[in-house]
Amino acid sequence: MTKTKAYGALDARSPLAALDIERREPGADDVQIRILWCGVCHSDLHTARNEWHNTLYPTVPGHEIVGRVTAVGSAVTKFKVGDLAGVGCMVDSCGHCPSCADGEEQYCDNGFTGTYNGPVFGGENTFGGYSQSIVVKQSFVLRIAHPEAQLAGVAPLLCAGITTWSPLRQWEVGPGKTVGIVGLGGLGHMGVKLAHALGAHVVLFTTSANKVADGLRLGADEVVVSKDPEQMARQAGRLDFILNTVAAPHDLNPFLALLKRDGTMTLVGAPGEPHPSPDVFALIFKRRRIGGSLIGGIRETQEMLDFCAQHGIVSDTETIRMDEINGAYERMLKSDVRYRFVVDMATLG
Amino acid sequence: MTKTKAYGALDARSPLAALDIERREPGADDVQIRILWCGVCHSDLHTARNEWHNTLYPTVPGHEIVGRVTAVGSAVTKFKVGDLAGVGCMVDSCGHCPSCADGEEQYCDNGFTGTYNGPVFGGENTFGGYSQSIVVKQSFVLRIAHPEAQLAGVAPLLCAGITTWSPLRQWEVGPGKTVGIVGLGGLGHMGVKLAHALGAHVVLFTTSANKVADGLRLGADEVVVSKDPEQMARQAGRLDFILNTVAAPHDLNPFLALLKRDGTMTLVGAPGEPHPSPDVFALIFKRRRIGGSLIGGIRETQEMLDFCAQHGIVSDTETIRMDEINGAYERMLKSDVRYRFVVDMATLG
Repeated sequence: MTKTKAYGALDARSPLAALDIERREPGADDVQIRILWCGVCHSDLHTARNEWHNTLYPTVPGHEIVGRVTAVGSAVTKFKVGDLAGVGCMVDSCGHCPSCADGEEQYCDNGFTGTYNGPVFGGENTFGGYSQSIVVKQSFVLRIAHPEAQLAGVAPLLCAGITTWSPLRQWEVGPGKTVGIVGLGGLGHMGVKLAHALGAHVVLFTTSANKVADGLRLGADEVVVSKDPEQMARQAGRLDFILNTVAAPHDLNPFLALLKRDGTMTLVGAPGEPHPSPDVFALIFKRRRIGGSLIGGIRETQEMLDFCAQHGIVSDTETIRMDEINGAYERMLKSDVRYRFVVDMATLG
Repeated sequence: MTKTKAYGALDARSPLAALDIERREPGADDVQIRILWCGVCHSDLHTARNEWHNTLYPTVPGHEIVGRVTAVGSAVTKFKVGDLAGVGCMVDSCGHCPSCADGEEQYCDNGFTGTYNGPVFGGENTFGGYSQSIVVKQSFVLRIAHPEAQLAGVAPLLCAGITTWSPLRQWEVGPGKTVGIVGLGGLGHMGVKLAHALGAHVVLFTTSANKVADGLRLGADEVVVSKDPEQMARQAGRLDFILNTVAAPHDLNPFLALLKRDGTMTLVGAPGEPHPSPDVFALIFKRRRIGGSLIGGIRETQEMLDFCAQHGIVSDTETIRMDEINGAYERMLKSDVRYRFVVDMATLG
């Protein structure tokens, strides 16, 4: 085991602070990565503060990880020392259930192992990307083709990117399709960029009139202020698909009304309190659907990273020092970030 | 115009009673049908009592109509005098919107015309099947291949049959698929029969332990008493698709948990009060979906009727006299019917 500097929380009420963790020596199938940048996801905050009531302490959050390979095990073929590499939300899964067999490890019947906070159905704790280094089996490590200068903006692709990419691909968003993106935050701004690059006509819905210009800059063809009933009415029945990235409870019905027949609204935000119950008539009268989607599988994450490298897509980021994380959480709660904090891990200790 | 005996309501609080309506003379494209049997749908009761707050009075319910052709217009090619014929929930639609072009007239952008209560977006009233005869354009009249002796049991296929058939087909229920049917009423008993005939493994969910034997007799491979958590737990993650026929508000989460990854639960019942809001985590963690479905198009209704004739499928019915309709409504409210009332229209006047 190797003592490794990290940053994390000892309990739900304390701010994050420096601590030491142990990392295993790389086994035959393992890749050891020195972490260069780590994105800050809302899940990090939920976990640090035990808002999902399942946090294992001490907790070291961070699952938007990019870095450089510093050692590889004897069986590793995908990576060599010096390569850039990424790690997202998962570091393991059972490998033999139907979902794993389909390359959809995020839906593993036996529960994938989170990059932090351990297996989703419980087990030994794992420590995430707010740390100097990480050791991960090669099948859960992603290749990075972006130029090194873009690396900070690549980190958020590992969660915010794949979480929006997977449903866009699942529902075949592309040329000839009109897609709505609800919410312009860490997820939503990636949704706009990716849907635009996939060739769809993109309509962004935001509650903030002061985000309209940004939405257009990021690639939206139209921006609708969703509090304005007239603007909303003009979109009725126009959308093939809606990616709803808003985690706060809100009325889903005004968005359902915008879907064409057989249209789907996929929710990728999980509210702490339930949304108001959606209107069954809105589903029945146009055979519409509400679905959910969870990150994406490893194969799909690699596909997304390669697509982003080809199209020059990265997240819009604000880089911070590791010791600024507690303030960043507070700003994140006020949506005061355009659009993702990324920690420069060189600032850790 | 032809004065025609009918049975209907003059306002929301009066019982249904005999009244006279006017029917148009058949035009070039029209089929005139003497009504032999008319099924009793819960929508009839909702409309008679204005429970959807949109009833046009006087109202003559009934949209599960079978009868014999008594006259045809000069342009009618599909029917000749003496043929058996059926009419379901629709008698017209715009004919040129994308849904009509796709043969999905029930989703007509301009609103189909209901067999009773007029166009769904408002307009002149129409009178349904609680009457001696009806005049309908030929493209909205269905052919019936069942033997005449089965005709009473054919009537409910025009609404209960197509309402369950359409989502079963939409979601490709058949051999190798495990499908849940929630609720054993007028819709649910047709869902069980049709899913079984389509070759699926059928799991019926009912709150009534005294319906288990009936469920098995109707074609269910398994019957689960949904109030029993242990029986429910044994079905977790097993189902490819769920057809939920229950119109009363109920907790959807225990059923969502039974779906495999990418499984869909389609709601065909529309509750007066909303269901408790479904859990977003249940959607996200297996990429599940909740959808709705509304009756079915004319082409699909004909397909269903032909399938049922080939497989000898009819509804389980209890036949009543027209003047027993008010008592039948009261029994329907108590689910005291196995499984559909059908009015012998020879008893009208």
